[in-house]
Amino acid sequence: MNEKLQVAVIGASGYGGAELARLLAGHPQAQLARATASGERAGAKLSDLFPSLRGVCEVVCEELDIERLASDCDFVFISLPHGKAMEIVPALLERGVKVCDIGADFRLRDAQEYEQWYKHTHSAPQLLCTAIYGLPEWNRDKIKGARLLSNPGCYPTSAILALAPFVAEDLVRQDSIIVDAASGTSGAGRSSFGLGMHHPEISTDFKAYNVATHRHTPEIEQGLTDAFNDQAAEPLRITFTAHLLPIARGILSTCYATLHHKTSIEQAQAVLQARYEHEPFVRVLPVGQLPQIKHVIGSNFCDIGVQVDKRTGRLIVISAIDNLVKGAAGQAMQNMNLMCGFDETSGLMSAPVFP
Amino acid sequence: MNEKLQVAVIGASGYGGAELARLLAGHPQAQLARATASGERAGAKLSDLFPSLRGVCEVVCEELDIERLASDCDFVFISLPHGKAMEIVPALLERGVKVCDIGADFRLRDAQEYEQWYKHTHSAPQLLCTAIYGLPEWNRDKIKGARLLSNPGCYPTSAILALAPFVAEDLVRQDSIIVDAASGTSGAGRSSFGLGMHHPEISTDFKAYNVATHRHTPEIEQGLTDAFNDQAAEPLRITFTAHLLPIARGILSTCYATLHHKTSIEQAQAVLQARYEHEPFVRVLPVGQLPQIKHVIGSNFCDIGVQVDKRTGRLIVISAIDNLVKGAAGQAMQNMNLMCGFDETSGLMSAPVFP
Amino acid sequence: MNEKLQVAVIGASGYGGAELARLLAGHPQAQLARATASGERAGAKLSDLFPSLRGVCEVVCEELDIERLASDCDFVFISLPHGKAMEIVPALLERGVKVCDIGADFRLRDAQEYEQWYKHTHSAPQLLCTAIYGLPEWNRDKIKGARLLSNPGCYPTSAILALAPFVAEDLVRQDSIIVDAASGTSGAGRSSFGLGMHHPEISTDFKAYNVATHRHTPEIEQGLTDAFNDQAAEPLRITFTAHLLPIARGILSTCYATLHHKTSIEQAQAVLQARYEHEPFVRVLPVGQLPQIKHVIGSNFCDIGVQVDKRTGRLIVISAIDNLVKGAAGQAMQNMNLMCGFDETSGLMSAPVFP
Amino acid sequence: MNEKLQVAVIGASGYGGAELARLLAGHPQAQLARATASGERAGAKLSDLFPSLRGVCEVVCEELDIERLASDCDFVFISLPHGKAMEIVPALLERGVKVCDIGADFRLRDAQEYEQWYKHTHSAPQLLCTAIYGLPEWNRDKIKGARLLSNPGCYPTSAILALAPFVAEDLVRQDSIIVDAASGTSGAGRSSFGLGMHHPEISTDFKAYNVATHRHTPEIEQGLTDAFNDQAAEPLRITFTAHLLPIARGILSTCYATLHHKTSIEQAQAVLQARYEHEPFVRVLPVGQLPQIKHVIGSNFCDIGVQVDKRTGRLIVISAIDNLVKGAAGQAMQNMNLMCGFDETSGLMSAPVFP
Repeated sequence: MNEKLQVAVIGASGYGGAELARLLAGHPQAQLARATASGERAGAKLSDLFPSLRGVCEVVCEELDIERLASDCDFVFISLPHGKAMEIVPALLERGVKVCDIGADFRLRDAQEYEQWYKHTHSAPQLLCTAIYGLPEWNRDKIKGARLLSNPGCYPTSAILALAPFVAEDLVRQDSIIVDAASGTSGAGRSSFGLGMHHPEISTDFKAYNVATHRHTPEIEQGLTDAFNDQAAEPLRITFTAHLLPIARGILSTCYATLHHKTSIEQAQAVLQARYEHEPFVRVLPVGQLPQIKHVIGSNFCDIGVQVDKRTGRLIVISAIDNLVKGAAGQAMQNMNLMCGFDETSGLMSAPVFP
Repeated sequence: MNEKLQVAVIGASGYGGAELARLLAGHPQAQLARATASGERAGAKLSDLFPSLRGVCEVVCEELDIERLASDCDFVFISLPHGKAMEIVPALLERGVKVCDIGADFRLRDAQEYEQWYKHTHSAPQLLCTAIYGLPEWNRDKIKGARLLSNPGCYPTSAILALAPFVAEDLVRQDSIIVDAASGTSGAGRSSFGLGMHHPEISTDFKAYNVATHRHTPEIEQGLTDAFNDQAAEPLRITFTAHLLPIARGILSTCYATLHHKTSIEQAQAVLQARYEHEPFVRVLPVGQLPQIKHVIGSNFCDIGVQVDKRTGRLIVISAIDNLVKGAAGQAMQNMNLMCGFDETSGLMSAPVFP
Repeated sequence: MNEKLQVAVIGASGYGGAELARLLAGHPQAQLARATASGERAGAKLSDLFPSLRGVCEVVCEELDIERLASDCDFVFISLPHGKAMEIVPALLERGVKVCDIGADFRLRDAQEYEQWYKHTHSAPQLLCTAIYGLPEWNRDKIKGARLLSNPGCYPTSAILALAPFVAEDLVRQDSIIVDAASGTSGAGRSSFGLGMHHPEISTDFKAYNVATHRHTPEIEQGLTDAFNDQAAEPLRITFTAHLLPIARGILSTCYATLHHKTSIEQAQAVLQARYEHEPFVRVLPVGQLPQIKHVIGSNFCDIGVQVDKRTGRLIVISAIDNLVKGAAGQAMQNMNLMCGFDETSGLMSAPVFP
Repeated sequence: MNEKLQVAVIGASGYGGAELARLLAGHPQAQLARATASGERAGAKLSDLFPSLRGVCEVVCEELDIERLASDCDFVFISLPHGKAMEIVPALLERGVKVCDIGADFRLRDAQEYEQWYKHTHSAPQLLCTAIYGLPEWNRDKIKGARLLSNPGCYPTSAILALAPFVAEDLVRQDSIIVDAASGTSGAGRSSFGLGMHHPEISTDFKAYNVATHRHTPEIEQGLTDAFNDQAAEPLRITFTAHLLPIARGILSTCYATLHHKTSIEQAQAVLQARYEHEPFVRVLPVGQLPQIKHVIGSNFCDIGVQVDKRTGRLIVISAIDNLVKGAAGQAMQNMNLMCGFDETSGLMSAPVFP
């Protein structure tokens, strides 16, 4: 028991942090040793901030002290707003701990692109090419050797897993891709409360937001470009629209792309099947079935289904994930498992909570 | 058209204010002439604060100027947090306008009780006995002559309408009353946003709050005491528990009281039926049917059903209202109709929006 | 009062019928005189089937008797599953009543297309070219003279209102149109209950359904083709995806189309603004604002907002309606108003119920 | 691995069965070996009936064959409508398997009471005194030796855990107890779909049901009577009201009882604390905190909080559980653990899924 991997979560007072605490509580080889939170939350038990964790996790949140953290822990998750992780990652890496950043700071390899979309100067651009993008289904080997891992965004995870098999095999026109996705409200984070997240205002609402300007757009483009082996002459550009669902958890991405050639739904399904056959967390649905958010909630699964619109020659690929698990903390723990030599599924095989 | 009653809403930027604007837009003899809001909301169109009102209401919110308001308007609704109305009501009354206060300042006739529950010294206690409690089904005649009307709270409206017929006829033990009620989140108001109203936290939750300390408790007690003709030797005391439903609108009150004598459900239903037969907004359900929140949403109806637990000799009366209509703005407009000599149902007969 | 238009609803036991009853109750010049329902529902008061209507509507449902209906009523709404209206419309027209069919039987002008999508032989194809498609914003003049009106589907209403201004002015590529829409569960109707609509299964779910095969597809295509003045060489073909939202009411359609030329968001908004400036029920949102389902619920409004994705040259137009009002009963009553010479907005100006 | 306890679930196609499959998938010493379903569901993979279980559970549902089941399995869960388990339990017991009945057939020790409330003649009354009521916190020792275990109902679990400590110590008047509870819709089961569970009808609704007639009433009374050591002269009688929440999972019970003597909230909390201090699944909240359904969802925890209404001398105890876990499958597995000598918490320590 004493030999469990000692894990820290920096920024544990948000939903990502709480979800890591939930998942780590069930991990046989790792344990949450330290958690940090800032301001008045430092000093509080994590289970005071999240009563759901009472009796599950007794860790007390503390102010961040990199020196101490690095000496006590082997592995650090960072769950902070963008612009914060870049300030502390260099110091953590210097001290030899492995880092998984759940935020956005190391997802884009191009510092200029980061600055353009996030309106923030990158203070550690030299690490951008070192950081490994943590989508295990497409990057497993590199993840195993990573010291700095950048955990994918929630929308990009769902969109790339859905579309990459078709982009990789050059089956669709790269300028035809549209990702129309919808997320539960937990995606906005715990500290985002305000009129826009006030329960009466959105409890039976549905709306699009950040249309044509969402920061996950370049990340999806980068992920799909990576999946395409030959470098495209022109950079792949997609249209991405995010919507807000009146539920707490889950993302459904409905992705459109024009097929180069006539393709049957069976052929399209076979492409997915072949690509993900041995993946423990991707469930490719049989022809005729489509994903539902409710079938993955609480789990690390990504369900993918496909349809072909013969009349217009378009492929429609739909994926569902739990934004806080496969879209954040679960995938982060999957990456930790790979980086630390554990079984990739350790602590992650709990079934979805349905209904 | 020009002869419509000119109405002002003080504090129009909350849910009560917006609901008044919605209802007044459909009133044939009254119109919203002025609306006030404080801070940065002054100067905004009400339909900018509430895009649902776009095309319905073109009023611009302004800072409160009592002089101007009183000279332009005949009738003023006040929809402010407690402690505020008492500061402006005297000046409004002096200038001859009729006032309907939707807040709590003039509901309790006893200034000490107000101060005990609201932790606020009453600055206009002399008006407490002048103010008329605006529950038309129990106070219609006085309302017609009122100059200062105090609009009942949402929970008290639902609880008093359910229980008062039985208390009035002394059919139940006064020390046995328990009101167990649940409200949608709009009851907390628009400016109450915070972690407690953050959508992810409560979207599929249910909880009790302010247990044994809710400020609507003495108001329900006063209303039931009023219904009981002979003054009770001991003051009537109830237990009231409020719960928060994961929906925006609606209140359901499940009320318990021990019957003095064996009573059938038919007898109990007949008590309600007799009392409310001619009431336009109270719908007494047939034996065997019980109210559902969804059947009253958007309307000024209060549905009431009854059951008797023969094994324990308890009466169970259940009522459903829309907390923003019969529980606030609708009842306020019903009171305005009475105070101004209009048909009591003017502008209020729109059917519930179901499903 | 006795001179009100006498209106019948055939198929009143569904959501469309109940919504008509709700709206007609507030119409100054028309009244629900007769309602039909089949099976055991015949003989029941409509308010027994829909307790929300108690005290609002006292009509008793009866078995359909065309002769009697035609002799007593001036105007008939038909709210039946597809395949049923075509059996009774000829007899109604022969007897001189005006008919508004809320179902799908007379929406497509091409009988073959109807049979292909609805898998049902059309028994009254001769009426298809007589029937007027009831989208007032695009067909007002013809509607005024209609005897048989075909009320648009809910998704087509939202999609055509959003896209038609751009198609009409040939600003977008006709082969690039994708409509990604989401509806509340009432769209499936009241009699569709089953596991797929069982509350626990879908209460926090989101999923796509009938992908690439939804029957509203050809209706949207026909509506957009009509909006395009010059007959296109090739028929306009769109991809349409419907999703199911875990709410009862509302549709949001997110529509994509590739712009022929560089267009700013201001220019795109101006196209909408110019087209709908004088429309009482279309609210074009200012640049930077986007529709939300919750802002139109209970009302006949259609809110439309627009965004341009400069990086990909795509237009994104988003519209929100209440599927049972502007998407069904409200638009039907709007059409009745036009067909009967009433003010187009009679009985329809009630504001959305928010929050 | 081969030495895991072989477990069968009879009636696996309902929510209770699926939840058992979910939980058993995470049990280190037991595995789901066989599952039965009737009708067309026999022959289907459980994961076809519940796509959430895809990749988690590969068991195929079969028709019930007691002989085969008993020869292959060591432990059987029965999750059938009332009246069914009594038909098969005797045969199972004869064949030496241990049985946990999740249904109602063996909960009441009095066959007459069963027949009175369930309107069904009991065919195995001889087993009623053998069956052990499986509330581990109050009956642990007997459960360890049970061969036939009757798993408590969901409402009774929440109500008894909340009230029993006070009844046991005779702190409250036995004729004063009211349990006002609310449940998510999954409590009605998967096969109960119909208009009453049709999503549009109840998605934002709240209502009471089976008032004064709910079958869990005598079970709560029996449980509380058992907790009270000295046999009461008169049988304990409670009033129980169930409500339906517009959410899928969770029960909150707000319980009222009149205190014999003045009691502070601290004293009341201490009673709970003392009673449940060493219980792994009961979390007694600190003074001032109250349970929320959302804090227990997906877990086997029961959260309990208490308040005292000094004005009326009433105790208010509130408990929250997940109706499908602590209220059904989780508690059943907890009982299996006790009956089979496993650690009581095996497979049950996963944290609630919040938010």
